[in-house]
Amino acid sequence: MGSLVEELVGAIGSGRVSTEEELLARYAVDQAPIMDFQLPEAVVFAGSVKDVQAVVRLCAALNVAVVARGAGTGVSGGAHASRNCVVLSLERMNRILELNPDDETAVVEPGVINADLNEAAAAHGLMYAPDPASFRSSTIGGNVATNAGGLRCAKYGVTRDSVLALDVVLADGSLIHTGHQTFKGVAGYDLTGLFVGSEGTLGIVVGATVRLKYLPRDVHTIAAFYPDFRQAAAGVLAVGRARVQPAIMELLDGGTLAQLDDLHGSDLSSRGRSLLLIQTDGFGAAAEADVVRSVLAAGGATVSTESTAEAEQLVELRRNSRGVEVDDEYRVGEDVAVPRSRLVDYVAALEDLAATHGVSLKVVAHAGDGNLHPTFWIDRQGSAVDADAMARLNLALDASIEAALEMGGTITGEHGIGQYKLRWLGLEQPEPVRELQRRIKELFDPAGILNPGKAI
Amino acid sequence: MGSLVEELVGAIGSGRVSTEEELLARYAVDQAPIMDFQLPEAVVFAGSVKDVQAVVRLCAALNVAVVARGAGTGVSGGAHASRNCVVLSLERMNRILELNPDDETAVVEPGVINADLNEAAAAHGLMYAPDPASFRSSTIGGNVATNAGGLRCAKYGVTRDSVLALDVVLADGSLIHTGHQTFKGVAGYDLTGLFVGSEGTLGIVVGATVRLKYLPRDVHTIAAFYPDFRQAAAGVLAVGRARVQPAIMELLDGGTLAQLDDLHGSDLSSRGRSLLLIQTDGFGAAAEADVVRSVLAAGGATVSTESTAEAEQLVELRRNSRGVEVDDEYRVGEDVAVPRSRLVDYVAALEDLAATHGVSLKVVAHAGDGNLHPTFWIDRQGSAVDADAMARLNLALDASIEAALEMGGTITGEHGIGQYKLRWLGLEQPEPVRELQRRIKELFDPAGILNPGKAI
Repeated sequence: MGSLVEELVGAIGSGRVSTEEELLARYAVDQAPIMDFQLPEAVVFAGSVKDVQAVVRLCAALNVAVVARGAGTGVSGGAHASRNCVVLSLERMNRILELNPDDETAVVEPGVINADLNEAAAAHGLMYAPDPASFRSSTIGGNVATNAGGLRCAKYGVTRDSVLALDVVLADGSLIHTGHQTFKGVAGYDLTGLFVGSEGTLGIVVGATVRLKYLPRDVHTIAAFYPDFRQAAAGVLAVGRARVQPAIMELLDGGTLAQLDDLHGSDLSSRGRSLLLIQTDGFGAAAEADVVRSVLAAGGATVSTESTAEAEQLVELRRNSRGVEVDDEYRVGEDVAVPRSRLVDYVAALEDLAATHGVSLKVVAHAGDGNLHPTFWIDRQGSAVDADAMARLNLALDASIEAALEMGGTITGEHGIGQYKLRWLGLEQPEPVRELQRRIKELFDPAGILNPGKAI
Repeated sequence: MGSLVEELVGAIGSGRVSTEEELLARYAVDQAPIMDFQLPEAVVFAGSVKDVQAVVRLCAALNVAVVARGAGTGVSGGAHASRNCVVLSLERMNRILELNPDDETAVVEPGVINADLNEAAAAHGLMYAPDPASFRSSTIGGNVATNAGGLRCAKYGVTRDSVLALDVVLADGSLIHTGHQTFKGVAGYDLTGLFVGSEGTLGIVVGATVRLKYLPRDVHTIAAFYPDFRQAAAGVLAVGRARVQPAIMELLDGGTLAQLDDLHGSDLSSRGRSLLLIQTDGFGAAAEADVVRSVLAAGGATVSTESTAEAEQLVELRRNSRGVEVDDEYRVGEDVAVPRSRLVDYVAALEDLAATHGVSLKVVAHAGDGNLHPTFWIDRQGSAVDADAMARLNLALDASIEAALEMGGTITGEHGIGQYKLRWLGLEQPEPVRELQRRIKELFDPAGILNPGKAI
């Protein structure tokens, strides 16, 4: 046998294999903090299922790790390269193979961009519901690998709820099809669900049949400003008690408002210390919006009667609040979820521990799901590393995770464990549960070549 | 060691173990056709998680099969006793342990009746969405074991979509907790999803945290009568094209209407040869109902403007159409699902093959999901078995399954494989997919004591 790279070129052609230094470095990481930088041996750009099978077979034969990757927008390091690995990009497999308006399904290759699928579906009055903040750049394959969430999950579900069937290349290079093309189907064990969220550690998703939902014909957006964050969090429960299910219910704290003002020249901060941003949709959107406005006003909010255009712009600002700054050792974004009734308590706990540890904090939350994204950061003091500040940042971070778990929460609502959150997984899941998962991994990938060191 | 029964009594007390002949016979089967009747060695009625653990540990030590059972309302034989087994009833573990209105969750023991959970939730304006036709008698544990569907799945999802976390006793008697108490959570592999629908073959569910949804504040019911069944099936697609998501969309054929008339003295048959029964719900229910009425009328339906009371009574009749007759060798109910666009074709195929094979047919369908329940039957000729008629019945049944698969469907939309549908599973799932499932089974239950011969 020749070198790994020669073998790869022989298997799928030179146009699909790169060892270009700058490209290797770019494909070595996703958008998560980097714990253990590793340059891949090569990046391959699969153009077909057969390409994926050929690469996996070759890597299996050579005992080389394969790190599958969509757009690399993950924030937990699920696509970080591991030692001596091949990074397998699925970006070029980006065709929508079928869009069936009457079936309300689509069959896509893994590299299809979330927004592109939505655009194609919209032509038929349909939508693909899961909408992570990265929807303009992230791929369906990546969304499946992380069981991605987004803004409209509380009403429309997470990625798992929209995936009906998968084509998966296993660790030996064989191809299987799981699930069903129908909305319902209960034949055998739920292998589809097992692959969703498994971060490319059990197999590589090379195709997906997804369910589409109806584009709402009416959308109402409500902006409710509060004097403080805790009151805004209480507003979330008030909407729940009114038994209204919004499509979107986003909670932004003062720090987030100030940042949006800085970036976009808005004046949100002058209107309150916290913003609850709610969209109702569907045939009942107007009636639901009326109920929402009234319960929020009763809870101390200043509720907009502003034009839809402005309110919708606020949602766009929120949708795009991701990606403005990338996490690094001075700034870490979290992704905990807590039971909804604990939102108020958790927000209070976050504020307390930021004060205790002397770190800055801002919080946005998909509040309908109890899914919070606190960001802790410390200001850089020139180029020198401030060891004390770093220690305080990590203490705050660890304490925020522990507080979420104490309240019955989880360490990751939608971003996944990846590489970055492995250190906390043992706090959430006891050893017997982790051992079961290790044994499932071993069953699917006995040599451990699929994205080693991630997810479990 | 003493006998199995003595050991069981020693482990959990005599009040929890029965060997009474009539009871053994009753607990030997669920409501599916019986292929291989086996009387269990004993029936045990667990009162606690510890009881379940003790029974499983004992059975593991003695290498005795354990068939877990809820209310025994399954129709695929998932709870049929296997040779020399212990039937483990979870009926007595029927407490709702928590109902958290602000979290919109409940924590229940497995023996809680679906309708009882709904009644408790309704007091808070909430509901547990999955509503199998057996909801008045079936248990949450049984619903979880089969990933039960029901009438309102198209809008509200199946059991899997409402289960957040599970407590499971494994084959060695150990207890694990899977999932999360929050709506979202992506830590590790989806073990919860793996247990849901696994029919007690991977572990025994002894507790569940479920998500509740909002009781709709408004419900509109529409009855649309059609001159034939195929036109009614086309009406389902017309509602989809209008992008209205009904809560319930039930399709009943002429045979079903005639039966309902016989049983309830109604005059449905005189009003059409097929009935499409639709409920819209939520804040937009009235507006949605208007759209539905108009598209159905345009498609040739006679659409009711009748009082809500009568239309709702029709839904009740449909809800209760289960259980009037139990399947036996002369009457077999099916549970296929097809992509929605094939509903019309599939109904045509069913009618053709019933005529070809000279068997009677009636069909009801959860049409929003493409999930059909055809029933084929032959009239009994006295007490003698009519071998020719039986052969025709089986030919029709097999042909109906094959037709569904050819159209991209599944052999079971919501009832599960159990024991009865194992014979068709190989038509749907190729050997490598089945082999993966066998290996998962082996991983969880190496001795094969948990509900052997079911599900996969």
